[in-house]
Amino acid sequence: MPSKELRVGMIGYGFMGRAHSNAYKQVGQFFPSDYRVVLKAACARDAAKAKEFADQWGYESVETDWKKLIARPDIDAIDICTPNNLHKEIAITAAAAGKMILCEKPLAMNVAEGREMVAAVERAKVPNMVWYNYRRIPAVTLAKKLIEEGRLGKIFHYRAKFLQDWTINADLPQGGQGLWRLDVAAAGSGVSGDLLAHCIDTAVWLNGSVESISALTETFVKERKHNLTGKVEPVGIDDACIFMGKFSNGSLANFESTRYARGHKAQYTFEINGEKASLAWDLHDLHRLQMFDYKDEGKIRGWKSIHVTDNGGEHPYMDKWWVPGLAVGYDCSFTHQVADFITGLETGTPAGPTFRDALETQAVLDAILDSAKSHQWVQVAKG
Amino acid sequence: MPSKELRVGMIGYGFMGRAHSNAYKQVGQFFPSDYRVVLKAACARDAAKAKEFADQWGYESVETDWKKLIARPDIDAIDICTPNNLHKEIAITAAAAGKMILCEKPLAMNVAEGREMVAAVERAKVPNMVWYNYRRIPAVTLAKKLIEEGRLGKIFHYRAKFLQDWTINADLPQGGQGLWRLDVAAAGSGVSGDLLAHCIDTAVWLNGSVESISALTETFVKERKHNLTGKVEPVGIDDACIFMGKFSNGSLANFESTRYARGHKAQYTFEINGEKASLAWDLHDLHRLQMFDYKDEGKIRGWKSIHVTDNGGEHPYMDKWWVPGLAVGYDCSFTHQVADFITGLETGTPAGPTFRDALETQAVLDAILDSAKSHQWVQVAKG
Amino acid sequence: MPSKELRVGMIGYGFMGRAHSNAYKQVGQFFPSDYRVVLKAACARDAAKAKEFADQWGYESVETDWKKLIARPDIDAIDICTPNNLHKEIAITAAAAGKMILCEKPLAMNVAEGREMVAAVERAKVPNMVWYNYRRIPAVTLAKKLIEEGRLGKIFHYRAKFLQDWTINADLPQGGQGLWRLDVAAAGSGVSGDLLAHCIDTAVWLNGSVESISALTETFVKERKHNLTGKVEPVGIDDACIFMGKFSNGSLANFESTRYARGHKAQYTFEINGEKASLAWDLHDLHRLQMFDYKDEGKIRGWKSIHVTDNGGEHPYMDKWWVPGLAVGYDCSFTHQVADFITGLETGTPAGPTFRDALETQAVLDAILDSAKSHQWVQVAKG
Amino acid sequence: MPSKELRVGMIGYGFMGRAHSNAYKQVGQFFPSDYRVVLKAACARDAAKAKEFADQWGYESVETDWKKLIARPDIDAIDICTPNNLHKEIAITAAAAGKMILCEKPLAMNVAEGREMVAAVERAKVPNMVWYNYRRIPAVTLAKKLIEEGRLGKIFHYRAKFLQDWTINADLPQGGQGLWRLDVAAAGSGVSGDLLAHCIDTAVWLNGSVESISALTETFVKERKHNLTGKVEPVGIDDACIFMGKFSNGSLANFESTRYARGHKAQYTFEINGEKASLAWDLHDLHRLQMFDYKDEGKIRGWKSIHVTDNGGEHPYMDKWWVPGLAVGYDCSFTHQVADFITGLETGTPAGPTFRDALETQAVLDAILDSAKSHQWVQVAKG
Repeated sequence: MPSKELRVGMIGYGFMGRAHSNAYKQVGQFFPSDYRVVLKAACARDAAKAKEFADQWGYESVETDWKKLIARPDIDAIDICTPNNLHKEIAITAAAAGKMILCEKPLAMNVAEGREMVAAVERAKVPNMVWYNYRRIPAVTLAKKLIEEGRLGKIFHYRAKFLQDWTINADLPQGGQGLWRLDVAAAGSGVSGDLLAHCIDTAVWLNGSVESISALTETFVKERKHNLTGKVEPVGIDDACIFMGKFSNGSLANFESTRYARGHKAQYTFEINGEKASLAWDLHDLHRLQMFDYKDEGKIRGWKSIHVTDNGGEHPYMDKWWVPGLAVGYDCSFTHQVADFITGLETGTPAGPTFRDALETQAVLDAILDSAKSHQWVQVAKG
Repeated sequence: MPSKELRVGMIGYGFMGRAHSNAYKQVGQFFPSDYRVVLKAACARDAAKAKEFADQWGYESVETDWKKLIARPDIDAIDICTPNNLHKEIAITAAAAGKMILCEKPLAMNVAEGREMVAAVERAKVPNMVWYNYRRIPAVTLAKKLIEEGRLGKIFHYRAKFLQDWTINADLPQGGQGLWRLDVAAAGSGVSGDLLAHCIDTAVWLNGSVESISALTETFVKERKHNLTGKVEPVGIDDACIFMGKFSNGSLANFESTRYARGHKAQYTFEINGEKASLAWDLHDLHRLQMFDYKDEGKIRGWKSIHVTDNGGEHPYMDKWWVPGLAVGYDCSFTHQVADFITGLETGTPAGPTFRDALETQAVLDAILDSAKSHQWVQVAKG
Repeated sequence: MPSKELRVGMIGYGFMGRAHSNAYKQVGQFFPSDYRVVLKAACARDAAKAKEFADQWGYESVETDWKKLIARPDIDAIDICTPNNLHKEIAITAAAAGKMILCEKPLAMNVAEGREMVAAVERAKVPNMVWYNYRRIPAVTLAKKLIEEGRLGKIFHYRAKFLQDWTINADLPQGGQGLWRLDVAAAGSGVSGDLLAHCIDTAVWLNGSVESISALTETFVKERKHNLTGKVEPVGIDDACIFMGKFSNGSLANFESTRYARGHKAQYTFEINGEKASLAWDLHDLHRLQMFDYKDEGKIRGWKSIHVTDNGGEHPYMDKWWVPGLAVGYDCSFTHQVADFITGLETGTPAGPTFRDALETQAVLDAILDSAKSHQWVQVAKG
Repeated sequence: MPSKELRVGMIGYGFMGRAHSNAYKQVGQFFPSDYRVVLKAACARDAAKAKEFADQWGYESVETDWKKLIARPDIDAIDICTPNNLHKEIAITAAAAGKMILCEKPLAMNVAEGREMVAAVERAKVPNMVWYNYRRIPAVTLAKKLIEEGRLGKIFHYRAKFLQDWTINADLPQGGQGLWRLDVAAAGSGVSGDLLAHCIDTAVWLNGSVESISALTETFVKERKHNLTGKVEPVGIDDACIFMGKFSNGSLANFESTRYARGHKAQYTFEINGEKASLAWDLHDLHRLQMFDYKDEGKIRGWKSIHVTDNGGEHPYMDKWWVPGLAVGYDCSFTHQVADFITGLETGTPAGPTFRDALETQAVLDAILDSAKSHQWVQVAKG
């Protein structure tokens, strides 16, 4: 039985608020530990919405002012699920109050903000983490293990895409709840910060730092009605973004994301080509990892589709779930992340990505916007 | 906020005990209703195991005698997750006590038992359901809708397979916890009752009754050490089973299941070929439904891979989960089944499969074993 | 440079006449040998059609009477591409004249005919072959090699299907050119002889003899207009056929074919499950072989998609074609068969399937029709 | 029966010499026309090799000096299958002699050469074509038709890759027969001219002109033994190349090719995302076109896998081959190109890509090398 409590204060109640809450509730059942997660309080500006969310998910109480939430002594950890433009202030305040912080991605609006946040949590010595959840899809975690075991050899190529199609309709407005991701004031950027950020985090984790890049962005729909003003306003975000570049290990990067790729709902794919083996993954079939292993005998060499559902210890996290062949869903990645966060508390080795880790992704994001604007190659800033 | 409670008493703590418990805990968060599910008591012969399970999953209390559990007035529903040979007695006792019953599949050891169980629940007028969970995988539910809308036209073929490979090793013992499925005394049959039962339930739901069949069974490994006796004993179950037959609607059936298909973990697949369209599904990629629609224009006709993850109402259950492109896992099927069971309580229209519905599958299972033994075609008995 | 000639007389000018002719023309370019194939004469009852075919494909002369063709001293080999009901008489006459014979499949209308044909060619000691071309798709030939190398171990299951959808339309007539396959008088049977015959030939080649079977046939459209009589007449062929059975090696057979599986054009698939590995193939992607190899390390085990296009000797026949990654088409199977037939002439070891080999498939076909009629299990007759 | 002859003189006898020869021999059988192709002479510096090639493929005569070949009055068309550095001189000489020219891709070493060649053929008014054969894979031709019919609407993205892995081994030498593609003096460039050239030709055909690009090239193996000198020499080609850019229609380009993508033999893929539909194709499964059609009903919307093998006129070229479901191979693309070239002769409307069409691809190739060198965005030169 758990002997300690991890009392969470959640800020936000949207898509991510739900995904994190589900993870907090599942973690003890599938990944038992010394900690029992307690959903202590849900916070949102709109009291009615906060109440409804708290009732549905079992939060014990409600706050409408995040500063009050942070000030509560019965809260151990603050989970930041707000639009990006609020991350910095909340995180710095929470750090100052000695709270652990679990912050939605991207870390910040830009590197400058990110550096302040990193400084704050490191000064306060509070456990901190950013919700780049795709690291914890079992197939992706397996890829990490295979790379760490040296199975790929020298890396030549890393390719990633995150394709969606939900903003093709020019009548879709921008701004406000559910659509703040289209509002540059709230989001900071478009598909680069929202989608490519995931691709970059995974890439840096799997393949090391990105050194330099050349980027291209496009805004296909130039104006959209703004939900907060009711007026047609210029669209400030990038609708699509491509960048190419070089990793520190000499491999070439080819990244792309867009919300204008008809037919793709949330298709995050990556492929990594090494001297000895290649790996590929696709979020649309998230339970599979594709591997081509050159050391296989020539006549039966081919891409293997690994159904990452074995429960005997071969496949990360899967020994805690069902039996071989039965896949877990997207939501498992959050449950795994909470489990690892708790393990980090228990062992003293923090689970990544920490704020500092996430700062590296932020630097690539800044370089993308700089390069797209200047039409020049840009060196990625160091942390 | 829910105004009523559904207080569950769970018998069993294995794979299915966990899957059902997860569903009970998730249902209110994703499918809010008037009912709040309360995990009242977990029951197992072994007190320590019952306690451990109750602690991990949040059951309020523990019982070691299922008769006592059934007798408790603070329990509304009994969930039967025991080996098959206990289903009948528990169900009849629970019905007599006026409890709702949610029973693991297959309903019973054979049709005779199943009839007694149906009589008991119908006499007692208690809500009852069998956990044929695959009906509630969104892609399978979508198949049902498409068929009901008449999109397939006259049906010519229904084909299903459930392939596994986990018993190829002849050193695997039979019997006892985790391996009772290999022990005919506990399971009643082998792959027919364990795996084909799922295929048959889905088939009857989608395509109507099976009229007559010819079956072939095989036991590849004739003897295995028995965990309960410690001795090598004959294997009484079917290791593999094939049957062909006719549905009442004139279509042909081709069914197969085995635990000796190297490379397949839990590959339940079905395909249905109609005059106007065909559908196919594969549990290994459970979030996709394949459809070939003859009315599509000739030059662009092809099999469509429908990623059943849209949340705008098009795809069953998916409006309650995440956003398009993000798949749910195997476990969602149980959450959906509890949600539908509760809707059945609210509306008075019971969610299927009821015991009576499941009796039809049982009749096909009996016919399979009869035919395999007699080497003759067999008519499937009516309920 | 070839020093010998192989002078071919072709009877028939339809789909198979074209496929064989293309093979005769390609073989010397891709598989050089001591033999030069000479297209000596094309034979058809209709002189104009024979002439047109001969002109297009480069046959040197034309005949309208197959007996005259066989009697010509400048012909070495007779290629029989007629409807099935003419195979026997032509083959026996050709054998008596000392001609080599390349006969379209199935060998005959039934085993009785087949035995006469085998006796004739064996008495005459003429080289003979049946065009079960799928053995020579490189991926299928690779499967044969892998099995011969013992990579699958003990076999548990062999599953094959041949699915089409081109006769669903009830207005399609039967009989006459192009549609003789629907006319039982010309074809002898329906999908069993036309489609399952291919599946059985491959299976016997890969997995050995079939011992006993239970079969089910169905004729969905009971009457069709007959092109030769102009009248609506009963349909005598099987529209669909399923059989299950046992191979001599103890493995289970599950076979099915139909022309009523909407969405499948010519989908011949097989899968073989062994103790150590499994193989699967699909004519719709004929250049790929799927393999699951249990000896692969657990955490990266999965189905491999082998793109059978390497040209370094690993992949059968492919060293004669292009470069890795560039697939050959369906027609290559015929070119390979002619190449192997010629190698058989050169080495004295005849290329299979010979008439005698094909007789075994014929026996299974007879058993299918017997079982479907009697509703009993049937032992397959020995050659 | 054909009334005219098209007498071909072939220069070269390697991979492409064989592919073109096969096409010349097949075209009359599958695509009858007024022209009979006659393989008049094969030309190579090495007389023995020329003889061997001529014998195997049925060329009537042999030349060892291409100038003599061009001078022969019994030759109508010159087929240039030499390394790239000889294209210009041969083509200009042949044009001056009034010969039709079928030239392997890429057209030339660079735009400057290409312009001279275009000027020469246009001055001489000789039919001319470049062997960008992938336009004639039926699935690709179908894509073209669908785009022309307006089914995609406004285009947002065009993505293409051509991935190989055959030069990873650093011990592979450069130069000489079979390896001249690694020798910059013979090839002009590496993967850009060899592989990306194909991608660009298809893209320009399907999606219009590329306006501006930013490119990155890499040479992973800096030195290789040279087969002609026997010495280790610097590698002058690009081993890998990525470029991003904009098409004239406003869509974004993302292109990549490499010979260091372990696991990919010859994987040319493209995808085009339009407002109304998307299309995707993969050379490794060349008989399939993937389509996502937004106008499909929401609940059954998905990517369709179109098996481009129907023979009723729906699928380009396929009415000339076999029956539905039976795929043609890579080599068909050349047969189709010859058929279209002949149709061009018959109709007076030349089949593309002509030299002038191919010049546009050459301009993109030059821009790639310029941009990669300068690290700047580059405007693509106009023809």
